[in-house]
Amino acid sequence: MTSRKDRRHERLFVVEGVRLVEEALKSSADFVVAVYNQEQLAATERGSGLLEQVQQLPNTFAAPAEVIASISDTVTPQGIVAVVAWPELEPQRRGVQLVLDAVQDPGNVGTLLRTAEATGVSQVICISGTADVYSPKVVRAAMGAHFRLAIVQDVDWDTAPTLLIEADNVYAAVAEASMPHYAADWRQPSALIIGNEANGVGERGLAIATKEISIPMVGPVESLNAAVAGSVILFEALRQRKLGRS
Amino acid sequence: MTSRKDRRHERLFVVEGVRLVEEALKSSADFVVAVYNQEQLAATERGSGLLEQVQQLPNTFAAPAEVIASISDTVTPQGIVAVVAWPELEPQRRGVQLVLDAVQDPGNVGTLLRTAEATGVSQVICISGTADVYSPKVVRAAMGAHFRLAIVQDVDWDTAPTLLIEADNVYAAVAEASMPHYAADWRQPSALIIGNEANGVGERGLAIATKEISIPMVGPVESLNAAVAGSVILFEALRQRKLGRS
Repeated sequence: MTSRKDRRHERLFVVEGVRLVEEALKSSADFVVAVYNQEQLAATERGSGLLEQVQQLPNTFAAPAEVIASISDTVTPQGIVAVVAWPELEPQRRGVQLVLDAVQDPGNVGTLLRTAEATGVSQVICISGTADVYSPKVVRAAMGAHFRLAIVQDVDWDTAPTLLIEADNVYAAVAEASMPHYAADWRQPSALIIGNEANGVGERGLAIATKEISIPMVGPVESLNAAVAGSVILFEALRQRKLGRS
Repeated sequence: MTSRKDRRHERLFVVEGVRLVEEALKSSADFVVAVYNQEQLAATERGSGLLEQVQQLPNTFAAPAEVIASISDTVTPQGIVAVVAWPELEPQRRGVQLVLDAVQDPGNVGTLLRTAEATGVSQVICISGTADVYSPKVVRAAMGAHFRLAIVQDVDWDTAPTLLIEADNVYAAVAEASMPHYAADWRQPSALIIGNEANGVGERGLAIATKEISIPMVGPVESLNAAVAGSVILFEALRQRKLGRS
């Protein structure tokens, strides 16, 4: 719809499909413009509900299905595409702080944002080199996490430590580390650094980390996918906090 | 390289790239035929080592890079493609038994196989409707798990229970279940059913399950991706068994 540079400059992102546009409307995000197809939306109950809402908003336009398809990034567009201003949310008080150190794959970044929301992460800090969190692929995989999660991106390693809020422990996920992820006390204020798919957490991240952790495994498996590893660790952190013990 | 039907009939699968072909050679799988490009393999140290090995085997053929590219399924082939006979491995004694109930996305199935290996799953039972475990996409995402994991596929729900080995508990992952996944005692012989991405575990799977579990979350997140959910549960099971307590 717009180039990456334009999107960043204007702090806008593109949201596609019934569920994500619903999320955008429910959130505090500013709705800039939406283009929808009446027949496609009316075809489902959920779509019909959204259609009624959208028709009452300013800057929303009915268009033929072909127009939606040409704007849309997905193969089977669901009849609505909206442009929304980036919400800027404050970090939450509780929860692990997640640092993505040049995680490159948009699917991994999206999955990690979804997990971050699901596990009550307080903020996500994306170091430069991480996939653009507002790109359509990341937005789709994150399934609405953007509307409820404090996210900062394009952060360099000089700035990152100043953004961390009283993290007593900063854990770096390192495949070779001997400390199991479940041996960490996640009830204490802490941060987790997940590294690049090929190279892991970089030098600067390791320098800031207070401890290195890994996920114990059976057998000769090579390191896990970044999104799976991050999810396993963050759900263990939530387990500990729910149970109130490690 | 061959159609799905051919591959199944012959019980063969296609393995691409240096790492996976290395794994195939290390395993007990029968190596049927390999086509390689000398220059591409010689370009890396690891590739050179593999080149020496492969040249001494019967039924291996040097070919121009274009030929490898035309056989290969990947965008940047690594100079070797092999055809391997399906290994048929016996279930292991210990470990959770994993049942995939029509998990459709090849990436999800591959990730689940990788996690299954990493967490010491004893066998994987794929109910009909699950993505073909020997398709190139699944093989790539599983990163060699096929060579060390007992896998059966195209299983119907009448047969599935007869394949389960003394599972005291059969847990179905159900987004709405009230029992947390970490409340299960995974040190007991157990099985885990992961359902289809859109519809979850089906009626037949629910009928066989002794308990339904879910992954506790914070906030209004919709259910997790099947691969992430399965991985979070299987790593919790491994954590319990490593610690010897729940």
